[in-house]
Amino acid sequence: MTLIECVPNFSEGRDKSKVDQIKSAISAIPTVRILDVEMDSNHNRSVITFVCDDGKAVEAAFAGIKKAAELIDMDKHTGEHPRFGAADVIPFVPLDDTKMSRCVQLARELGKRVGDELNIPVFLYAEAATRPERADLAAIRNKSFQYEQLKGAIKEEKWKPDFGPSEVGKAGASIIGARDFLIAYNVNLNISDVEIGKKIASALRARDGGLTFVKALAFYLKDRNIVQISMNLTNFRKTPIYRAYELVKLEASRYGAYPIESEIVGLVPEQALIDAAKFYLQLNGFDEHNLIERKINENVSE
Amino acid sequence: MTLIECVPNFSEGRDKSKVDQIKSAISAIPTVRILDVEMDSNHNRSVITFVCDDGKAVEAAFAGIKKAAELIDMDKHTGEHPRFGAADVIPFVPLDDTKMSRCVQLARELGKRVGDELNIPVFLYAEAATRPERADLAAIRNKSFQYEQLKGAIKEEKWKPDFGPSEVGKAGASIIGARDFLIAYNVNLNISDVEIGKKIASALRARDGGLTFVKALAFYLKDRNIVQISMNLTNFRKTPIYRAYELVKLEASRYGAYPIESEIVGLVPEQALIDAAKFYLQLNGFDEHNLIERKINENVSE
Repeated sequence: MTLIECVPNFSEGRDKSKVDQIKSAISAIPTVRILDVEMDSNHNRSVITFVCDDGKAVEAAFAGIKKAAELIDMDKHTGEHPRFGAADVIPFVPLDDTKMSRCVQLARELGKRVGDELNIPVFLYAEAATRPERADLAAIRNKSFQYEQLKGAIKEEKWKPDFGPSEVGKAGASIIGARDFLIAYNVNLNISDVEIGKKIASALRARDGGLTFVKALAFYLKDRNIVQISMNLTNFRKTPIYRAYELVKLEASRYGAYPIESEIVGLVPEQALIDAAKFYLQLNGFDEHNLIERKINENVSE
Repeated sequence: MTLIECVPNFSEGRDKSKVDQIKSAISAIPTVRILDVEMDSNHNRSVITFVCDDGKAVEAAFAGIKKAAELIDMDKHTGEHPRFGAADVIPFVPLDDTKMSRCVQLARELGKRVGDELNIPVFLYAEAATRPERADLAAIRNKSFQYEQLKGAIKEEKWKPDFGPSEVGKAGASIIGARDFLIAYNVNLNISDVEIGKKIASALRARDGGLTFVKALAFYLKDRNIVQISMNLTNFRKTPIYRAYELVKLEASRYGAYPIESEIVGLVPEQALIDAAKFYLQLNGFDEHNLIERKINENVSE
């Protein structure tokens, strides 16, 4: 059995019953295990993380996208997080020994079904991108180019979808792809001026001179009156969590701001936190084999 | 099967072949899995960590003690770490659902065998202690009261062993007991004055006004010309590693000293490092269920 992870993001973060229906549609497919569901009312977005056998991955993701398209009307959707559609981003992630190429294949199969059967325009991104300019998600859709702007632009060659019609209905468009394990990491600051947040996010963002493998946005969290630096760490082995945290802290200090907490949205590999502990405690010679849980399991299989 | 962990400490940290022979004697017993072997030439001490079925724990520990007694002559032993005997300290630690009371029982069985069959005086300590003043290991043997001092004092009532003769032979005495999971944690400093190290160790030590659940000593590491604060964290859930590290750093700063690295000797539960990451990254709302490895395993067993 080849294990695939899929992390669909939907444009519904306030109405739990809708998110539950989407989740149920996905988990009805055999071999699916829902690992996590996160809802953010400020972003008005939810993230469902599931794993399943690679033979069922397309079917499970399709079920979620279909249900989201039934329940979510993008004309009525508002929220902090940029979005194209009801099922906004659907990435496949290889786990264990699964190859990236398999995930790219799954992304294409899913894209074709969504375009053909649901009449939703599909843009392939990341490792599945058909054009270099579509590799980066933030270059496809961002704060200044979202659902509303796509409606007007989709007839242009630049915005020709990879599958489905050159037309944006109430379910919007879906961005489907394959990528490495990503950590969704937010640092909340003790300030409420989002303009300062934007400068800090800019300092973190790879594209603007920050850390490689980091994408960053600043959000204003209305219910708490604070600013959030919201990041995607696209290669935690190379750019570790602690480096992002410390750079946010440094860049914030210029403005008299500091982190009040940080949060990981969805799942994270243990190694990412172990690496942070090794950094802060200067455990320079530490060998992960000395983690007792790993030691005992190692020995069991011998 | 009830799993027991045993962490015997032997007074040999330089001659690998002797340590290997002791290890082989232990691992010859059925169900034994050697998890770790650490040797320290400055301390002239080694620590072997093993797990086994509770029905074999006494036999396995006895085999190690017997071999150590054959190979190690305490009259010839010198090293930084305080010691009573060839097999210096032998604790049993409950894992999973095993009860502490079972480990106490095993300690007593082992003590009796060692006293009767090897003629080695045995002192029960920690949870197995027969006198309140023997609960604390450092109160039994320490820098000012070791093998050499015990030879003269063992006829006194205060030093009447729990098992074995009131006589100290070349194998010295053994301290046997049951305790919770302990983390052996060292912080190496950028100074070579052990007197400063002793002040810092004093500031860490529970007994002298430091952190509860911390025992601390200062050592001079001759081969590196630096000072080491060597600690036992006896309840890492209550007194976490990071708190000990940060207090060493703080107390050292008074003298212009700082940590150059820290090290964990032997095994450590993942949770101890996860807790450190949560502290430093301010992951205040983090739920360990979001560690992907745990999530996948959770789901597998359902």
